[in-house]
Amino acid sequence: MAVDLNNYVASIPDYPEKGIIFRDLSPLMADGEAYRQATDRIVQFAKDKNVDMIVGPEARGFIVGCPVAYELGVGFAPARKKGKLPRETVKAEYTLEYGTSALYLHKDAVKPGQRVLITDDLLATGGTIGATIDLVEQLGGTVVGCAFLIELKQLNGRDRLKGYDVLTLMEY
Amino acid sequence: MAVDLNNYVASIPDYPEKGIIFRDLSPLMADGEAYRQATDRIVQFAKDKNVDMIVGPEARGFIVGCPVAYELGVGFAPARKKGKLPRETVKAEYTLEYGTSALYLHKDAVKPGQRVLITDDLLATGGTIGATIDLVEQLGGTVVGCAFLIELKQLNGRDRLKGYDVLTLMEY
Repeated sequence: MAVDLNNYVASIPDYPEKGIIFRDLSPLMADGEAYRQATDRIVQFAKDKNVDMIVGPEARGFIVGCPVAYELGVGFAPARKKGKLPRETVKAEYTLEYGTSALYLHKDAVKPGQRVLITDDLLATGGTIGATIDLVEQLGGTVVGCAFLIELKQLNGRDRLKGYDVLTLMEY
Repeated sequence: MAVDLNNYVASIPDYPEKGIIFRDLSPLMADGEAYRQATDRIVQFAKDKNVDMIVGPEARGFIVGCPVAYELGVGFAPARKKGKLPRETVKAEYTLEYGTSALYLHKDAVKPGQRVLITDDLLATGGTIGATIDLVEQLGGTVVGCAFLIELKQLNGRDRLKGYDVLTLMEY
């Protein structure tokens, strides 16, 4: 029977700063049945896309993407912050509220023509995911979908993902 | 057919500093078949232990542990660095070459009496894993095993894990 995934979201007022409600998905990940059902819905979304590879930004994108990779029988490549990947990388910058940050991906993580599914826990402004898409496309990969557990509608992250196939399991 | 997982380890000389050979497991994780076989060996190790929960330290411990959790049908809880977990936590310090660091786990991540498997990519001195065990035990969990893709024998991490059931898939 399908569980209501919303019951596994911890909403934390005024975190990390006043006025923000932080949506913490650790209760979902910690519950075997909820984690399995969420994963299976992403696997279902991915199944007819002939996915070759999953890429997720650190670190919660790993928790979402890795079981999907396992179940599909494909590999997983982490998109990471500066200094975390030991071999040659490509880099993509993205804008934060103040200043910029950057993500990196090993140059051999995606081969030209590979079909890539991108995963993360939460779609907010889309900055992190935009950078992850950029990394995959720099390497000649095709982004065939982006899957998230939660979408924060007010932040309009979908506007940055126009032209991509986006799955979100919950909306806030 | 079993693949030789050693073929999916990138050995990087003089990284992160001179004289160190860094063992990078990203090629293993990026290969669907190697990642699946490594995961299945950990699942096999875990299967008769009645595991309730997987805990892994950030961030490569997530990539190892999450598909194991999915396949066993149990939850996953991340042990994280300072400032990454939004709710009440327990804390465990561990020694680095210079100074100390700390890991945190949500207080409700493990319930008293739960049987926990700990996962990480690499067993080196055992500092990180010692702290992760400490966190689980502070919450009343029982550590029924620790599983790693690689063990660096010279660093004697197993000495710190005496009394625990340890699986490593490769030795260097």
